[in-house]
Amino acid sequence: MSATLASRCARKSLLSKVMTPSEAAHKFFKTGMTVGFSGFTPAGYPKVVPIALADMVEKEGAKLQFELFAGASVGAETEDRWAKLGMESRRWPYQTGKNIAKGINTGKIEMGDIHLSAFAQNLAWGFFTKDHTTNPGKLDIAIVEATAITEDGGLVLGTGVGITPEILALADKIIIEVNTSLPVLRGIHDIVPDLRPPYRRPFLISRVDDRIGSDLAYFDENKVVAVVESNLPDNGRGFSAVDEDSKKIAGHIMDFLANEVKQGRLPENLLPLQSGVGNIANAVVGGLATSQFEHLQVWSEVMQDTVLDLFDAGKLDYASAVSLSLSPEGFKRFYSKLDFYKKHVVIRPEAIANFSEIVRRLGVIAMNTPVEVDMYAHANSSLIGGTKMINGLGGSGDFLRNAYLSIMHTPSARKSKTDPTGISCIVPMAAHIDHTEHDLDVIVTEQGLADLRGLSPRQRAQCIIKNCAHPDYKDQLMEYYKMAEKKCLAAGAGHEPQILALAHKMHVNLEENGTMKLKSW
Amino acid sequence: MSATLASRCARKSLLSKVMTPSEAAHKFFKTGMTVGFSGFTPAGYPKVVPIALADMVEKEGAKLQFELFAGASVGAETEDRWAKLGMESRRWPYQTGKNIAKGINTGKIEMGDIHLSAFAQNLAWGFFTKDHTTNPGKLDIAIVEATAITEDGGLVLGTGVGITPEILALADKIIIEVNTSLPVLRGIHDIVPDLRPPYRRPFLISRVDDRIGSDLAYFDENKVVAVVESNLPDNGRGFSAVDEDSKKIAGHIMDFLANEVKQGRLPENLLPLQSGVGNIANAVVGGLATSQFEHLQVWSEVMQDTVLDLFDAGKLDYASAVSLSLSPEGFKRFYSKLDFYKKHVVIRPEAIANFSEIVRRLGVIAMNTPVEVDMYAHANSSLIGGTKMINGLGGSGDFLRNAYLSIMHTPSARKSKTDPTGISCIVPMAAHIDHTEHDLDVIVTEQGLADLRGLSPRQRAQCIIKNCAHPDYKDQLMEYYKMAEKKCLAAGAGHEPQILALAHKMHVNLEENGTMKLKSW
Repeated sequence: MSATLASRCARKSLLSKVMTPSEAAHKFFKTGMTVGFSGFTPAGYPKVVPIALADMVEKEGAKLQFELFAGASVGAETEDRWAKLGMESRRWPYQTGKNIAKGINTGKIEMGDIHLSAFAQNLAWGFFTKDHTTNPGKLDIAIVEATAITEDGGLVLGTGVGITPEILALADKIIIEVNTSLPVLRGIHDIVPDLRPPYRRPFLISRVDDRIGSDLAYFDENKVVAVVESNLPDNGRGFSAVDEDSKKIAGHIMDFLANEVKQGRLPENLLPLQSGVGNIANAVVGGLATSQFEHLQVWSEVMQDTVLDLFDAGKLDYASAVSLSLSPEGFKRFYSKLDFYKKHVVIRPEAIANFSEIVRRLGVIAMNTPVEVDMYAHANSSLIGGTKMINGLGGSGDFLRNAYLSIMHTPSARKSKTDPTGISCIVPMAAHIDHTEHDLDVIVTEQGLADLRGLSPRQRAQCIIKNCAHPDYKDQLMEYYKMAEKKCLAAGAGHEPQILALAHKMHVNLEENGTMKLKSW
Repeated sequence: MSATLASRCARKSLLSKVMTPSEAAHKFFKTGMTVGFSGFTPAGYPKVVPIALADMVEKEGAKLQFELFAGASVGAETEDRWAKLGMESRRWPYQTGKNIAKGINTGKIEMGDIHLSAFAQNLAWGFFTKDHTTNPGKLDIAIVEATAITEDGGLVLGTGVGITPEILALADKIIIEVNTSLPVLRGIHDIVPDLRPPYRRPFLISRVDDRIGSDLAYFDENKVVAVVESNLPDNGRGFSAVDEDSKKIAGHIMDFLANEVKQGRLPENLLPLQSGVGNIANAVVGGLATSQFEHLQVWSEVMQDTVLDLFDAGKLDYASAVSLSLSPEGFKRFYSKLDFYKKHVVIRPEAIANFSEIVRRLGVIAMNTPVEVDMYAHANSSLIGGTKMINGLGGSGDFLRNAYLSIMHTPSARKSKTDPTGISCIVPMAAHIDHTEHDLDVIVTEQGLADLRGLSPRQRAQCIIKNCAHPDYKDQLMEYYKMAEKKCLAAGAGHEPQILALAHKMHVNLEENGTMKLKSW
């Protein structure tokens, strides 16, 4: 055992359980098990034991296949490799990786997605494993990354929490990976138990910086079967460069927010911001860094590099997140000012960060990117062509449903294989619907912004087509809308006009002809 | 002024504002105004002033047209008559009545629906009237029914609260209808202000019978322009008889709940129940009245006659609702035991009753009837054929999204004009989606129950078709599913198989041929 590991594990009774990742992998796993991972959207996930298990399959020909539950995605070196080796039969609720997506979309992996806050509680309530013959309602094993174990047996977690409290409580066996390559992150987490109804009580968070729990995660020591040392870094998220269209979108959003402040509908320092991932999100946060807004706050799932920029620009007072989804460079920046960030950042379980109660109380401004939105403001966040899973729903619904302002931003068009604007992100009817017209306030593309608050469906359609659609599609969409309106109003069925036989014609044309541009309706 | 009115209005300074409904109608209204109504799903709504306004139009040829905002539906004698007379240009967020539905579906009335809890707050935040030239962000006038006014100027409200606190705060002018035909309902309401973020604080309700506000609604007396006497009863909801299929559905749900208790996933007295309206809801509540469950609680929007039965059966400890949606006979029963009900019933604003925070904390069991559900468990609650508005979304999303268990119950098929089972309520893809696959746990028809928790989309589709579809449609649906699965898996796009060109073929066939039964796919 390394001296560093010994110093990180102040709970001496656990030192007898120290072993190598390979020993743990060989000793405690068998095929068919239900496994929980700590971490969230790659940060704070277990690394060395999952890799050792993959090595067993790849190098020793072991037959291992698991049902995997993790807060969101984990690093490709673990789960995507598992998928490549056929080691996953089931996965909830969010993933990233070419191999796992392939497994899901070819029917080899049973995946499902659900709002992340609902996932955490439903897993804890036993809904996901209720029909298992062994350990019904429980998990067989949890693998949790920590940066230290305190003398009283508390875990100082890593860079992402996800569903760690739930899997520590739910699993029969616990393996702890102490990552000695990370600083001890003591004091940055806020871990609170989420009791099951009828015993659930209010979560008394009324400000982004309120803390209501412990900075440590506690667990039943008797369930710990192994403590292993890890020195692998988080496989951080690369930084997406900001393109011109994203800058335009960010500009529209800045103008909109400034006007909301002017009209007295938002305070001068706005309200806590939730921002998704990707280059539009980066552009928006970049826009805020050079804006007139000050004393901003972030209440979000992931904290990307741009949030560090916002701190550096002196614009941001406090950030709450479920994980540090930073680039390798971003992690360096974060750790170099760790004392500062411990005072300005809190990492929470997704059961709390995504909980409707708190998102709604705080009045979060939610901003996310969909696959497509339709002219009535239903959004598809997960399935290309209505059938092909990308990553999953994530927390988009937790935030968009409960936000003070729900904003979806998207380029107006994307390229298909043969047409630079072959895919319109504004369609008559989304091919799949994750968020309904009842949940979105604002749609933004580089073309402009549609403020949908208070509009009837027919007003909404015209506003979205006019303000947001790409010029290549504006006439085509308006022709469809007018045709549908005429038919449905005449039939006395025109609250939300559609012609079902044509509503997905643009999608079908994309599949058959490589573009959503139609010869005719 | 009647002696009764004088005795009901202990705030003497308001007596100078007493006038007839006709006087108030003639004096304070002009066309184009934004108007707010108290009440909810016909109970507690203003009656005599709206009727006087309709009389002005019908008998005097007055030109009056309003934008109307009310918590949910109001009695047909007010709003539906307004719609018939062309007196409504805009309406949010829920309505019932032949004339208003016709106005909406022929494009004469701009209606929109949104989750009721979001409606209350978004109205209060000024989102619905932000672009008005007069009174932007406000309402011009609020008409509120009360059963008394206290000496300190508090309103004892009527049988339904809805958005009363919001419109009292938001309107420039207030008209109070004191309904002297109702008992003074003092002590049954719990009214709490919902502060705007960033000032919103936790609502400390952890039990159905927790009270956190006042039993009175307060308002700025200077805004009161008229106090009028009303003696019209609430135009109560008729009682729907229970048919055989509904009894079967209720039976499946009773078995399911009993098993959840047995498995330890529900306490013996279940969790607070939310039940929608209609004959399936009546059958379910009827089923509970003769079940083994005791000490039940209700946390719902409307309290129907069957809830009185549940009290009478000694099964129900407490009920919280937004309105008493009782039949005339039910109102008699309620008023005859008013002292009992004041100790066992609370009427709350929809901003509180439907608020995600509380629904989720309490762990409500939500049960609602959709228009249709699809094989992946997306539900259409509002639009026939995807385009024709019935009533609106209501609070279904508030409850289904945040519930401990989200249950949708529907007959497996309904009759079309020419075919007794011409409409399948299980379809490949819902024609409109109000609730997504991420929100529903259980689908029930008279055929059986599909427990969808933890199932992937492909598992879900097969489970729903097998357990819930009508025998006339089972093979047809399975043929579609298998065809879609084959195509999408082969294309590596099979997470949630659909064939977009065929997904609504059953709906199109209904429109063209009067039945969803296809000759072939």
